[in-house]
Amino acid sequence: MTHPAIRIIGIDPGLRNTGWGIVDAQGARLSFVASGCIHSDGASPMGVRLRQLHEGLREVIETHAPDEAAVEETFVNRDPQSALKLGQARGVALSVPALAGLDVEEYAANLVKKTVVGNGHADKAQIAMMVRVLLPASFAASKDAADALAVAICHAQHRGARLLARKLA
Amino acid sequence: MTHPAIRIIGIDPGLRNTGWGIVDAQGARLSFVASGCIHSDGASPMGVRLRQLHEGLREVIETHAPDEAAVEETFVNRDPQSALKLGQARGVALSVPALAGLDVEEYAANLVKKTVVGNGHADKAQIAMMVRVLLPASFAASKDAADALAVAICHAQHRGARLLARKLA
Repeated sequence: MTHPAIRIIGIDPGLRNTGWGIVDAQGARLSFVASGCIHSDGASPMGVRLRQLHEGLREVIETHAPDEAAVEETFVNRDPQSALKLGQARGVALSVPALAGLDVEEYAANLVKKTVVGNGHADKAQIAMMVRVLLPASFAASKDAADALAVAICHAQHRGARLLARKLA
Repeated sequence: MTHPAIRIIGIDPGLRNTGWGIVDAQGARLSFVASGCIHSDGASPMGVRLRQLHEGLREVIETHAPDEAAVEETFVNRDPQSALKLGQARGVALSVPALAGLDVEEYAANLVKKTVVGNGHADKAQIAMMVRVLLPASFAASKDAADALAVAICHAQHRGARLLARKLA
């Protein structure tokens, strides 16, 4: 029995740089589709910056037509003002795929690290290295894009269990 | 010389309840147009909740066609996790009018209070009372809607100075 391929978009939200990465998962087999980073212009008013992120992400979803989305749930230990700013970018990252009709799952950063590297405290360089091992075709991905691909890989591993949990809930 | 009327939407963002209020400003004269509150379903995943807020706000903007938007910049003194959640709702509140092509201004909560009540530490009841005095036709507005109307009133008072400051910047 072969599984149908599922196309997953992983998103690593940030106000200045929102990374994205798209992966096809067929059973345990993963293949790289595309990745990149959406920038917002720091000199513009907040509404304009969030519109830039929204439109960039919408274009990526229209172009690559993923089936499911996964967003990194960043651990926030900074001051409330920084958390509020990051939250604004996350609000866009979560709502754009939902507006396109995709299911959106959130994954804690340490679960992403544990799934991809095997260690919940892995650093960015270790994540980028393992992403290149698992998806050799992604070798040119930027750091933000590699983090987003890691979120997509994490979802590919956990989506079966999450779907089951939701059915049983 | 008569000023053309400007239609302003004020938004008081919250994940559970996002208040909105629309006011026409002609010079110093203000008139109430409409107000309400958009709810998100607490039992749904975050992406779905933010989509509900996005679609609700988009519908309000399509229906009433405001010219400019003003969003309350809530003072955040709570823990980073709460700030992140509020930020997600604000991300929607700021991006939806920007996506519709509106300029979006942000106003600190204490400036809104000072402008509407004359006291930066006014409580919700005082704000609601002054909103009813300034916009008698809004008497039936809910608390969230009254806060949003207060933001719209604040923008009506300050928009001239803000536009000038932006031109000079």
